[in-house]
Amino acid sequence: MSRSAPAHQRRTPENWRERWYEVIFEADTRAGKLFDVVLLIAILLSVAVVMMESVRSIRSEHGSMLFAAEWFFTVLFTVEYFVRIVCAPRPLRYVFSFYGIVDLLAILPTYLTAIPWFAGKAGTQRLATIRALRLLRAFRIFKLAHMLSEAHALRYAIWAARAKIAVFLSVVLISVVIVGSAMHLIEGGKVDADGNPIITGFDSIPESMYWAIVTMTTVGYGDISPSTPAGKLLAAGMMILGYCLIIVPTGIVSAELAHVGARGLTTQVCPGCMSEGHDADAKHCKYCGTHL
Amino acid sequence: MSRSAPAHQRRTPENWRERWYEVIFEADTRAGKLFDVVLLIAILLSVAVVMMESVRSIRSEHGSMLFAAEWFFTVLFTVEYFVRIVCAPRPLRYVFSFYGIVDLLAILPTYLTAIPWFAGKAGTQRLATIRALRLLRAFRIFKLAHMLSEAHALRYAIWAARAKIAVFLSVVLISVVIVGSAMHLIEGGKVDADGNPIITGFDSIPESMYWAIVTMTTVGYGDISPSTPAGKLLAAGMMILGYCLIIVPTGIVSAELAHVGARGLTTQVCPGCMSEGHDADAKHCKYCGTHL
Amino acid sequence: MSRSAPAHQRRTPENWRERWYEVIFEADTRAGKLFDVVLLIAILLSVAVVMMESVRSIRSEHGSMLFAAEWFFTVLFTVEYFVRIVCAPRPLRYVFSFYGIVDLLAILPTYLTAIPWFAGKAGTQRLATIRALRLLRAFRIFKLAHMLSEAHALRYAIWAARAKIAVFLSVVLISVVIVGSAMHLIEGGKVDADGNPIITGFDSIPESMYWAIVTMTTVGYGDISPSTPAGKLLAAGMMILGYCLIIVPTGIVSAELAHVGARGLTTQVCPGCMSEGHDADAKHCKYCGTHL
Amino acid sequence: MSRSAPAHQRRTPENWRERWYEVIFEADTRAGKLFDVVLLIAILLSVAVVMMESVRSIRSEHGSMLFAAEWFFTVLFTVEYFVRIVCAPRPLRYVFSFYGIVDLLAILPTYLTAIPWFAGKAGTQRLATIRALRLLRAFRIFKLAHMLSEAHALRYAIWAARAKIAVFLSVVLISVVIVGSAMHLIEGGKVDADGNPIITGFDSIPESMYWAIVTMTTVGYGDISPSTPAGKLLAAGMMILGYCLIIVPTGIVSAELAHVGARGLTTQVCPGCMSEGHDADAKHCKYCGTHL
Repeated sequence: MSRSAPAHQRRTPENWRERWYEVIFEADTRAGKLFDVVLLIAILLSVAVVMMESVRSIRSEHGSMLFAAEWFFTVLFTVEYFVRIVCAPRPLRYVFSFYGIVDLLAILPTYLTAIPWFAGKAGTQRLATIRALRLLRAFRIFKLAHMLSEAHALRYAIWAARAKIAVFLSVVLISVVIVGSAMHLIEGGKVDADGNPIITGFDSIPESMYWAIVTMTTVGYGDISPSTPAGKLLAAGMMILGYCLIIVPTGIVSAELAHVGARGLTTQVCPGCMSEGHDADAKHCKYCGTHL
Repeated sequence: MSRSAPAHQRRTPENWRERWYEVIFEADTRAGKLFDVVLLIAILLSVAVVMMESVRSIRSEHGSMLFAAEWFFTVLFTVEYFVRIVCAPRPLRYVFSFYGIVDLLAILPTYLTAIPWFAGKAGTQRLATIRALRLLRAFRIFKLAHMLSEAHALRYAIWAARAKIAVFLSVVLISVVIVGSAMHLIEGGKVDADGNPIITGFDSIPESMYWAIVTMTTVGYGDISPSTPAGKLLAAGMMILGYCLIIVPTGIVSAELAHVGARGLTTQVCPGCMSEGHDADAKHCKYCGTHL
Repeated sequence: MSRSAPAHQRRTPENWRERWYEVIFEADTRAGKLFDVVLLIAILLSVAVVMMESVRSIRSEHGSMLFAAEWFFTVLFTVEYFVRIVCAPRPLRYVFSFYGIVDLLAILPTYLTAIPWFAGKAGTQRLATIRALRLLRAFRIFKLAHMLSEAHALRYAIWAARAKIAVFLSVVLISVVIVGSAMHLIEGGKVDADGNPIITGFDSIPESMYWAIVTMTTVGYGDISPSTPAGKLLAAGMMILGYCLIIVPTGIVSAELAHVGARGLTTQVCPGCMSEGHDADAKHCKYCGTHL
Repeated sequence: MSRSAPAHQRRTPENWRERWYEVIFEADTRAGKLFDVVLLIAILLSVAVVMMESVRSIRSEHGSMLFAAEWFFTVLFTVEYFVRIVCAPRPLRYVFSFYGIVDLLAILPTYLTAIPWFAGKAGTQRLATIRALRLLRAFRIFKLAHMLSEAHALRYAIWAARAKIAVFLSVVLISVVIVGSAMHLIEGGKVDADGNPIITGFDSIPESMYWAIVTMTTVGYGDISPSTPAGKLLAAGMMILGYCLIIVPTGIVSAELAHVGARGLTTQVCPGCMSEGHDADAKHCKYCGTHL
């Protein structure tokens, strides 16, 4: 990749667009790194502003200052967004990329609050919460991950194990549906002496499924908990199942990562076919047979 | 297996029964895949209908529509069930197989509600819950697993570790019995000034064992929790034990899966040096360079 | 070991003591296996009797039957205990072994309830709970483990990792002490308008430590939870620490078990020095250098 | 290291300072080991005194005795602190080392309570809690870890995986921010019939983030829990995410530790064939049989 290529091998940028692209989209040069760090701090500050705005006591005291800060960051990110579009070699590809959409979503809510139709329709309360969408901007922090090659190994291990994870999640969800239904059967549908239904938290299958997920993931709020002996027995079984099931995905990704890790250690490149990924004890390229 | 064999190697089905068998029981052909996907959607929809029926507000509003949808899916699955029996080379073997029994249990409850004896005896409430058994139909989703060869590796790893898991579960259950009894000894059997028993949630060993399972699996509802210093000390010890015990099965299946993973990828033997342990994507022996 | 040796290699037992020893202490012969299974069922039944006795409603109804069953099992286990002493080649070694002590503790409580001094002093309530000690008898179920060679691998992995586990537990306990103290500093020691202390559940360091353990092990009862922003922040940090710390012991035992598993695969015995435990790819004995 | 070198190879200490250094800072000699054990017991006792002092009932009864014990340990540790400074070859390096700072922090609070300005300003309550800082002294127990070479492997594995752990924690925190904001949007900002805000526990983004951490780490106090169907659905998704996310770091450290474990044991190189990877107990090369 051009990213990790040494500087002297790379073509010197010829015009301002290429120079700006290097600063804004890449992080190899000093200017590029500085830009990324400054941007990261700006994102963190703007997220902090949104958070503080949501606290009633802070909002009533520093409301106007937070309002100003919010518009400052919004304008800053808007400028950044348009500069990105201008610099990108293929602007449309950036606009519809994951980060392009997140960048747009990060600035939209503040502008929406300025439109009277939105401001009038949803009420102040509602608008304050729509602003929370801007927190998606925090996803840009993931750009940090570009600097960490480790993120690649993680993503690869999870990707390699996707089929096993899908099977595991299916088992979890089917267990949740069946145990939820059984708990609804056991604990729900109670009536008091007058025939009025008693609220137990197991009054419908979806509610029981919520309880089943709370239990199986070992979160255990306790807002809903079984009261009959049969319900407690089933709950105990579910807990032990959840406690044991966590083993399976752990083992899966462990094995996958161990595999990636073992392969990750080989940095030899085959002189014959330029392929990578050879085992540490390999003497010949496993793709073309050339002696390494 | 015939399942994964390429189409041109397989005998062309000669009569309608074989053709139907291929569509309904297998998933190699286009028609077979389409049938499986349609069936899966029907199962999910029918499960959703049962779920919605259990919610009081939805039932009172759309009751008749849900009733119709329920009978539609029941008849559909009944037809499917009999077609499966007709197509299967050995019908009895299908009927008494796991999926055969689940298929039957999936359609029985709806028919039972139509029998006056059942409808009159158990009351509407009860019947509504018996219907939940139909959710077992969701197990058919496991047929998806047939498509994922990964499920096999998982099942193999768990099967290979079954003895270790049995030992682990024994340790957990014995700990639960002993700690449950000890907590009953410490926290239970309290009486107030008048000699009346105080309900603490540790009033019998089974109740204390329920608490012990809730604690050891780190679910922690909080509906029962110790109040005496001695009880809190024992509870703290139990928590740390549960927190540490989870290590053991994780390690077991990890090691087992690493083993399966390592073996599952390597079946080729080098014709040159007879060495084993080649990666799945290897074309040349990594020890001597011979073409595999 | 003589246990796993084939039957024809073993010396035929010569007198009744050796024959009985084989039946009672070993599980190789048919009679020995039968004895173990019958004993296991008797232990499970007697544990069930103690459990049922602790439930008020069952005790008041079937009290006399449970009383009889209890004495039946106690006498049975007493006879078994003395037969074991008689059969054992070195009786004292059995008496002071782990299982010897558990066997004695299993029968003692019932006899203690028959002594007027104990019955009169502690009251009926107390005595009912002393009986719970008998549940330690359940530990005999561990004899099952003798049949599972897997238990050995587990114990070996945990033993090999004992130093790492000790370091881990030290870190956990020191974190608990420090976070507990900090939470006591933040949340505890509150007074209301009249200067009376407010009970917050963080009123002393031991109580705060109990909360810290409940939080760190992710049990989270919710009987004690922070109410101030600073307390919630510290609690959040503690949770993430606990969530991440569980990684460490899991990894430790995983690595240890993988190691045991890898070594467990080598069944080669060196012809030179009769040593075992060679790696799968070893061509020479690593102890004496003989070609394997 | 000089620590593990046999005694006869080490230079005999020439003056009292070197002899004392060996006793106080090292643990190779009998006197050094004895000193460490005595110190450890003193630390544990002093921590116990601080804990007992925080319990109201014990403080009111044994207050003066605990006060005396506290000053006894403080003076003891002060003497020890100055002896360490005197003995250390480079005193300043000790003073500003991690243990030097902890040693100072361990004795400071007691002296601070003796200064009228502090005692008068913060009130008795406050001072009692400042004392809790002394518990940091417990960190000295880590010196035990010096004896355990295992601690090194652990620290190395965590250090090697630091980038992966950073990525993991970023994902967790970003999820917490986004889910917290979404829950604030869904559950917060409710008003009753009179327009007064209803306290739901999701009234600001920081509060919702606290809930998100409680849920994602599977602690689940239940002091804040969603009440709307949409909130419950999002909470269920968050729980499953948290339940699955724990896999990732487990796998990371597992793989890292397996790697460390494999490498940690093998430093010998065969003089015959220059092969590496021999077990720690190997006396002969397993590839060519040469004596190592």
